[in-house]
Amino acid sequence: MPVPGPGYSITIRVEAPPSASAAGDLTSAVGRVGGVITAFDVVESHVDRVVFDITCNAMSANHAKDITDGLDALPGVRVRKVSDRTFLVHLGGKIEVTSKVALRNRDDLSRAYTPGVARICQAIAANPEDARRLTIKRNTVAVVTDGSAVLGLGNIGPAAALPVMEGKAALFKKFAGVDAWPVCLDTQDTEEIIRAVELIAPVYGGINLEDIAAPRCFEIEARLREKLDIPVFHDDQHGTAIVVVGALRNALRVVAKDITKCKVVVCGVGAAGSAIIRLLQHQNPGDILAVDIHGIVHPDRGDLDSNLEQIAASTNAERKAGTLHDALVGADVFIGVSAPNLFGAAQVATMNSDAIVFALANPDPEIDPVEAQQHRHRGHRPQRLPEPDQQRAGLAGCVPRPARRPRQHHHRRDAGVRGQRHRRRGGAGPAQRLVHRAELFSTTRCRRRWL
Amino acid sequence: MPVPGPGYSITIRVEAPPSASAAGDLTSAVGRVGGVITAFDVVESHVDRVVFDITCNAMSANHAKDITDGLDALPGVRVRKVSDRTFLVHLGGKIEVTSKVALRNRDDLSRAYTPGVARICQAIAANPEDARRLTIKRNTVAVVTDGSAVLGLGNIGPAAALPVMEGKAALFKKFAGVDAWPVCLDTQDTEEIIRAVELIAPVYGGINLEDIAAPRCFEIEARLREKLDIPVFHDDQHGTAIVVVGALRNALRVVAKDITKCKVVVCGVGAAGSAIIRLLQHQNPGDILAVDIHGIVHPDRGDLDSNLEQIAASTNAERKAGTLHDALVGADVFIGVSAPNLFGAAQVATMNSDAIVFALANPDPEIDPVEAQQHRHRGHRPQRLPEPDQQRAGLAGCVPRPARRPRQHHHRRDAGVRGQRHRRRGGAGPAQRLVHRAELFSTTRCRRRWL
Repeated sequence: MPVPGPGYSITIRVEAPPSASAAGDLTSAVGRVGGVITAFDVVESHVDRVVFDITCNAMSANHAKDITDGLDALPGVRVRKVSDRTFLVHLGGKIEVTSKVALRNRDDLSRAYTPGVARICQAIAANPEDARRLTIKRNTVAVVTDGSAVLGLGNIGPAAALPVMEGKAALFKKFAGVDAWPVCLDTQDTEEIIRAVELIAPVYGGINLEDIAAPRCFEIEARLREKLDIPVFHDDQHGTAIVVVGALRNALRVVAKDITKCKVVVCGVGAAGSAIIRLLQHQNPGDILAVDIHGIVHPDRGDLDSNLEQIAASTNAERKAGTLHDALVGADVFIGVSAPNLFGAAQVATMNSDAIVFALANPDPEIDPVEAQQHRHRGHRPQRLPEPDQQRAGLAGCVPRPARRPRQHHHRRDAGVRGQRHRRRGGAGPAQRLVHRAELFSTTRCRRRWL
Repeated sequence: MPVPGPGYSITIRVEAPPSASAAGDLTSAVGRVGGVITAFDVVESHVDRVVFDITCNAMSANHAKDITDGLDALPGVRVRKVSDRTFLVHLGGKIEVTSKVALRNRDDLSRAYTPGVARICQAIAANPEDARRLTIKRNTVAVVTDGSAVLGLGNIGPAAALPVMEGKAALFKKFAGVDAWPVCLDTQDTEEIIRAVELIAPVYGGINLEDIAAPRCFEIEARLREKLDIPVFHDDQHGTAIVVVGALRNALRVVAKDITKCKVVVCGVGAAGSAIIRLLQHQNPGDILAVDIHGIVHPDRGDLDSNLEQIAASTNAERKAGTLHDALVGADVFIGVSAPNLFGAAQVATMNSDAIVFALANPDPEIDPVEAQQHRHRGHRPQRLPEPDQQRAGLAGCVPRPARRPRQHHHRRDAGVRGQRHRRRGGAGPAQRLVHRAELFSTTRCRRRWL
């Protein structure tokens, strides 16, 4: 069940008669239809009327209409204008390119541009490694998509994917100080995507693949890692895995459980789920049960592709078969990257005590947070990352390291750092600082939503 | 002859004995070997020594060494460190990507990123035109190069071209408020360049081709104009032409000459020269003489390619043959986009009175500015744009207009606006404002160097 959130926030400008009860009447009308008021301002005050801006969270376009209709129906009240705050934020785009150097006078120009710049070009031509020192390369990441699997919206194409890639670039800068640039490719052909990324690579210190549909994404990532001399990182796989494993380590510390004795259920075995399982295995969990749309993954199921075969061989020590509900019985941890509303409070009750629930399906989770909370007072501590799950927002791992490519052990280290709060703060390198910052963000957010 | 300029500016930290004459001794030593001091600071003052930072312009690496050697040779003076200010400016690159929206809390994130952003994506998917309203597209230009003809440095490749493209992006923002991003392609194949630009196009409102070698640049520009629904502009051709024609209109107003009665010599008939001639022809000049390495272009020369044939047919009304020096006799205007040191004061003397000289070869001009100035007091007004010629820095014309492509009449209008100072200031659209700003820059610079 969706709840009103800031992703659908509207500001309604209304005129009302100048009565003492106006504020109460208006806010009550919004509350009656389920709108959550976040701000209330008097804009104009006249003898015959008062003008208010009422800002509130809604669930959907229909719900927003219900709210404005509810206000309009009040006696003497007139809705003047409704602004959608999310659209206002996006007007003209969310990022910009700015100069880091002064360009005040001819001398500045002569150094930043011709003729001075020619010596920089010659230095790089003579010693290509200098590009990392004398250009934006060392701190710049390409956020590459073909628009084929954008959020939960599916194949909406490169132009419609741009707002997400801009947002990701803004997050990269805000939380990691990394300059990221959206590259939305007007093709969904594997070979063309690989070649295009190769061609644009000279400007970048790293490639962050984003929202590219499986299984194409696996081949593109693997081939680019072979071809390029900079790190290539598929956010939806490794970004998600790093954040989830880091958050799980934090959560297990809170409930004082040892991961090597925990049974972990991972629901959804696509790009994200497979990467989570593989990273989790380095923590030696008691057991992992992978569950997909056909139930628990086990070697005898007969419908496994090579990815699932590999996962079947390394999980499910007891060779269990059955549904997600069967898998949850006695489980310590649920990690969902699958589909909405797959289980409820009854299934949480069958989990082990102090159970941890990460229901991460986007935008609607595998279990309603309200349902999951029902067992909070019965010894369970179901948790979920806040939806929308900005947690897996590529903030981990994708740093322009001098390393040729990010390897599994980097991901393990990142997840480890994320699970250690801030113990290792001193003397960290840039990569370390990035995950520190991402972790700070992650732990702050987790704490706020602690159930 | 090169002169010390800010493109080669060094800061020398020296220790000297604490005498009253130290400042004079040091600055004189720099001046003796031709260094031009631009700043002199006392950094530390001790009983036994004083430390100075001497900032000065040099001509070359050897000249910089002469200067430091000259200082080091003074009694009691020790050079501690020499910093190259141009390299300092470039450390870490010259541009960055910054967020235009606040990301302070969960509500901000929910609007700028998931879940709010999903509605923006859906709006664009439903109505692709909304990309201009809701993303960076409307104000963003790709600065595309293959690194094959960078400045006067030739084919130095995409990585070494990046400092120039970063600089261009910084200029775009500073002087026109346009967000520009460097795209340095790791190929010099015409088909691959065209395809790569097509693939990255969804993010951009315009394509600015830059420093791509002729004749490849002509085909790439023409084909991309056919394929893309955004303007494609080759800076080296049209940017140069717009600025030169605009500056010429200004200059002719100063000497009170009518262009329809002027004889104009254009030396160099490559990408820039051809575009200058074609734009100039819309001003109906008295006559144009095109001159290339083989002399004046005329139809009977027998060595003309299709571009030169077309130019021969539409210039040189008197069918003159001969050298550049022959062409200059009786000419009102010289525009050079060719090679260094082609003529001297003697040839300027053969030009018409109030002659205008734009010697734009980069980095060394067709005539030494000192030579050109010799006739200033004899009724001639030789002018040149300051070298380095940042004038033609793509500031004109390349705006993400809703128009499908920039057409010749846009270039004419741009050049016209540049030639009108600020008469049409009020009510200008974004394109107009861009050329206004570029013109402001251009006239300010021209005035400063007025001879």
